[in-house]
Amino acid sequence: MIVIFKNNANPEQVKQLCAGFEAQGLKIHNSEGEHTHLIGLIGDTSSVDIDLVRANDFVEDVKRVSEPYKKANRKFHPADTAVDVAGHTIGGGHFSVMAGPCSVESESQIVEVARDVQRSGAGILRGGAFKPRTSPYAFQGMRAEGLELLREARAATGLPIVTEIMNTEHVPLFADVDMIQVGARNMQNFELLKELGKLQTPVLLKRGLANTIEEFLMSAEYIMAGGNENVVLCERGIRTFETSMRNTLDISAVPMLKSKTHLPVVIDPSHAAGIAWMVEPLAMAAIAAGADGLMIEVHNDPPHAKSDGAQSLTPAQFDALMGKVKAASAFFGKAIN
Amino acid sequence: MIVIFKNNANPEQVKQLCAGFEAQGLKIHNSEGEHTHLIGLIGDTSSVDIDLVRANDFVEDVKRVSEPYKKANRKFHPADTAVDVAGHTIGGGHFSVMAGPCSVESESQIVEVARDVQRSGAGILRGGAFKPRTSPYAFQGMRAEGLELLREARAATGLPIVTEIMNTEHVPLFADVDMIQVGARNMQNFELLKELGKLQTPVLLKRGLANTIEEFLMSAEYIMAGGNENVVLCERGIRTFETSMRNTLDISAVPMLKSKTHLPVVIDPSHAAGIAWMVEPLAMAAIAAGADGLMIEVHNDPPHAKSDGAQSLTPAQFDALMGKVKAASAFFGKAIN
Amino acid sequence: MIVIFKNNANPEQVKQLCAGFEAQGLKIHNSEGEHTHLIGLIGDTSSVDIDLVRANDFVEDVKRVSEPYKKANRKFHPADTAVDVAGHTIGGGHFSVMAGPCSVESESQIVEVARDVQRSGAGILRGGAFKPRTSPYAFQGMRAEGLELLREARAATGLPIVTEIMNTEHVPLFADVDMIQVGARNMQNFELLKELGKLQTPVLLKRGLANTIEEFLMSAEYIMAGGNENVVLCERGIRTFETSMRNTLDISAVPMLKSKTHLPVVIDPSHAAGIAWMVEPLAMAAIAAGADGLMIEVHNDPPHAKSDGAQSLTPAQFDALMGKVKAASAFFGKAIN
Amino acid sequence: MIVIFKNNANPEQVKQLCAGFEAQGLKIHNSEGEHTHLIGLIGDTSSVDIDLVRANDFVEDVKRVSEPYKKANRKFHPADTAVDVAGHTIGGGHFSVMAGPCSVESESQIVEVARDVQRSGAGILRGGAFKPRTSPYAFQGMRAEGLELLREARAATGLPIVTEIMNTEHVPLFADVDMIQVGARNMQNFELLKELGKLQTPVLLKRGLANTIEEFLMSAEYIMAGGNENVVLCERGIRTFETSMRNTLDISAVPMLKSKTHLPVVIDPSHAAGIAWMVEPLAMAAIAAGADGLMIEVHNDPPHAKSDGAQSLTPAQFDALMGKVKAASAFFGKAIN
Repeated sequence: MIVIFKNNANPEQVKQLCAGFEAQGLKIHNSEGEHTHLIGLIGDTSSVDIDLVRANDFVEDVKRVSEPYKKANRKFHPADTAVDVAGHTIGGGHFSVMAGPCSVESESQIVEVARDVQRSGAGILRGGAFKPRTSPYAFQGMRAEGLELLREARAATGLPIVTEIMNTEHVPLFADVDMIQVGARNMQNFELLKELGKLQTPVLLKRGLANTIEEFLMSAEYIMAGGNENVVLCERGIRTFETSMRNTLDISAVPMLKSKTHLPVVIDPSHAAGIAWMVEPLAMAAIAAGADGLMIEVHNDPPHAKSDGAQSLTPAQFDALMGKVKAASAFFGKAIN
Repeated sequence: MIVIFKNNANPEQVKQLCAGFEAQGLKIHNSEGEHTHLIGLIGDTSSVDIDLVRANDFVEDVKRVSEPYKKANRKFHPADTAVDVAGHTIGGGHFSVMAGPCSVESESQIVEVARDVQRSGAGILRGGAFKPRTSPYAFQGMRAEGLELLREARAATGLPIVTEIMNTEHVPLFADVDMIQVGARNMQNFELLKELGKLQTPVLLKRGLANTIEEFLMSAEYIMAGGNENVVLCERGIRTFETSMRNTLDISAVPMLKSKTHLPVVIDPSHAAGIAWMVEPLAMAAIAAGADGLMIEVHNDPPHAKSDGAQSLTPAQFDALMGKVKAASAFFGKAIN
Repeated sequence: MIVIFKNNANPEQVKQLCAGFEAQGLKIHNSEGEHTHLIGLIGDTSSVDIDLVRANDFVEDVKRVSEPYKKANRKFHPADTAVDVAGHTIGGGHFSVMAGPCSVESESQIVEVARDVQRSGAGILRGGAFKPRTSPYAFQGMRAEGLELLREARAATGLPIVTEIMNTEHVPLFADVDMIQVGARNMQNFELLKELGKLQTPVLLKRGLANTIEEFLMSAEYIMAGGNENVVLCERGIRTFETSMRNTLDISAVPMLKSKTHLPVVIDPSHAAGIAWMVEPLAMAAIAAGADGLMIEVHNDPPHAKSDGAQSLTPAQFDALMGKVKAASAFFGKAIN
Repeated sequence: MIVIFKNNANPEQVKQLCAGFEAQGLKIHNSEGEHTHLIGLIGDTSSVDIDLVRANDFVEDVKRVSEPYKKANRKFHPADTAVDVAGHTIGGGHFSVMAGPCSVESESQIVEVARDVQRSGAGILRGGAFKPRTSPYAFQGMRAEGLELLREARAATGLPIVTEIMNTEHVPLFADVDMIQVGARNMQNFELLKELGKLQTPVLLKRGLANTIEEFLMSAEYIMAGGNENVVLCERGIRTFETSMRNTLDISAVPMLKSKTHLPVVIDPSHAAGIAWMVEPLAMAAIAAGADGLMIEVHNDPPHAKSDGAQSLTPAQFDALMGKVKAASAFFGKAIN
């Protein structure tokens, strides 16, 4: 960490600040130039609060040099982490496809779709029981009943299930869920992240709409700091000025994340653009950029889906896509799991 | 709502879609041109799911004409709403100042700051007990104990208190809090919004970092739809490409919100820029733009604050600011409350 | 185009506005509901000025239904356009690679790099003579002398050359340049676009840092409206809140552009991230998403490059990349040109 | 400037890099920690190319500590600069209002509006002759003829005129223009900035849609480095994800710019939101935040304006606004000029 002082900084104040850093076990390298006086802090600065340092009126700026995350940091864990989801592996050279409807709507719907996506090669069944909707007047999901139907679909197919949690109070309901999803809007719901850190259930953590890669990794760190290191990161589009698509897929986040962390990284092309016909090119791009998997929405009857129909594939479209996914992931050196 | 069809749309499919709309009680105006075929839906379309309509592959685009929020909509409630916070009024011509530390840190700190801000003219005491922090290694707030200290500061001064909630499980702890704050990161924590909708306690709802004005109003609608119409909106800076400040204050949101909704709108200039010396110009701009109040961070010792010191004013700085706030709000036609 | 009226719109004013539209040859479909009164305009609305309509105080909003671009619009030209650059074809099933240094620095440098990239399979030589630099104190390019050196490199290798123009006054200097590049900062330099519209030289038009896909196509339309239909679009990263990379590559722009226009679309992965090691994954993603080509920076000595060294590949790195580019473009069905 | 090395940096390479810096006259402070090795460069680093340093594969990151602009930097010119526009002063405690139509459309229009805005208290007449329009099919301005009409309006009223230049070739046409405007889309048209740097005519430089404050100041530096220090900065709204307004006014840019530079800063509330009724609250906010002036669009017949009618005030509305502008600028300590 580097602290840059204002030109008129009082030497006595600087000295006191430095004494405080030394008391925290940090070493200080002083550097005084004609126009600039700065210090470098050497040691573990992850507990130094940048804002606190900046609050001193004689400080011009503070810049962090090393990353504030440790458990998620590839520097300290060079090897790829593979996450086991009820026997299905994500990461570590395996390529995973999670598929299913945006919302669980009925037993026949979820079981039918589960069978369809399994037949096409998906390794995990997705389906929303608790649904975060912008409007209070929109369908809010089948909630506990939806979880029950997911269990039935799992029983019918053997596919592990992944579904979204929105509230710490629902944790007991998710006890036997194979992978718990944290949605983009809850990426910084820190109370929820802390609760999930106490479990061993794998967590699929989606990047927030306007969160940086560093914030994304800090949210993973919340879960890992609690003891649950089974975290899979999911990029699903960020918010930009562009309006022709729902979100802007940040494809560069795949190689950037993989350089910074050992955790698996998957892409959700369905939410990224919000348009069914765009799922294929974005899925191909994700594979080419080095993603470890895909999360894709599939619905037996998209125009009558209770949510996100516009971005859902039919089972037939998904089957055609999976042929291409298998070929492309093989081409880029990963085996479909 | 307007539905635009693709050029190759099958008339039979269009007919079926229209029949569905009519079954929902909507009237249809058909409009066929050389290049474009569209229909207008007449009636209450707030329950029509745009995505569902878009999911039809013969639909080119769907555009909403009327706002999807009702209870928050000024069209249906032309008069300004004033929210009563334990006898202190926000909105309706009153100008409110909420002030206090980012985090409650000790009894002496919060009581001392409460007395200071009261003396300078603040009408409500703010202070964080539950703190949303990007890093799991940062100070997380005094939690229940912090709430207790806020109560002591209220007892000592008579100031109503406003403090942030992060989880539905904590609702019972907030039973006697005068105003409950929903932070920017939880603006779309819909489970939390629904719980707050069941109370009558006023809610200070902060705009999310990257949420549109329409989404902001939809989150207010969540609370109001549940029965709690005591909502105050707070703009606190949005995320943009600019890096010289923490956030970009969207000052235009003040007049835009006030044109669209009858709810009071306040500004948090402390979080908006994240820089103490910038609080004054932004506070002045907020008053000039028509805001109904300000939320300002004040700390007795900013460089040793446990969070957000860089943006906190000292009590003396706050006192000087309040002189200007009183003069400016009087100049722009609002009485300090 | 749809015009939505305010509730209190004066019928006389609406009538006058409609008469104006009819005088422009448009037909009007009127649609009056309980809460909403709107009209649909049928016919060619590309010359209707949305702002002008919105300026009427009885108009609530105006929404465009059909695209404001014609010559670039795939609706009116369904087949892919292939652009011929001195015998080298971009688009129409061909995959092109343009490579070379950010800046032309010396004869030996540009000739050497030209030979290197040709050997590896590049079809066009890129190199900057006029350089847009954020700082007036940075190297501004060799200008006319740089163009001369590019001609020498072309003579030595036979590769067509593409280089950036920054000013209409330089058009004569570019008379024998094979393809003229318009940089991101000049995407809306309309005077320049108009001048280029008068030529027949192919234009490589880069998307502006914060320009929408529609604005991008409108800038292409400027060139095409002047008579020059040889336009190639280049996505090179947009500006977002993310700071770990220079720009955010908008990979979705590839399929979106290709659905809206018949023009070829290429990707510049070097500028997109600004980081040399990220060129490969982004190049692979571009191919997978359906791009028609790549523009890649190659320098014989990146740490001593006069600009953009951080994102330049060495000839050896480029050669290794080209092996992968050839394989991937073949896999995705396009032949390297 | 600080250079951070990768953990595996070769000491020999680091040594060579440092020797290069020393050859440029810089001093080096070395700082080696357990996890981090960095150096601080002491001296004038404005000519060091960050990208070039970053291009070394043993460099992890480079951070600038001092600003890359000199002539625009308040550190080296603490006193406010006041710019003289044909006898009218902008900055240095004076508050200026520039007003007039978006486009010059006819002699009677511009002369009439000039008289109107003068009567209401505007100090400079604005009017566009060369118009940057997104669509090639939209009105492109009266060009040279428009400049001639502006001269007539100046002759009729004595008001200095400000109008936009789009191309270096037009510089001779602007010889007797009192203030030359560089529009947002040309903020990084460096060839144009360099030409304007050779003149002494005051330049009104508008911030680009997605340009940072630092880039804005670097563009001012381009003009100043050429010898023309008569630069006025104009914030006119930036591009964000928000869609309810055309742009997002970055009100914080006013105090931030004024802390970093000695140049005057004005606000264009007309373009910022693109909505006539929002001009007043944004103008008030600008004054309150410390701006040195306003640029406001006024049209005698907004619904028939040839451009930007939606954001234009009528002369009567402008007159009412000016009453408030005079009162507010007096309240905030500046005299209308």
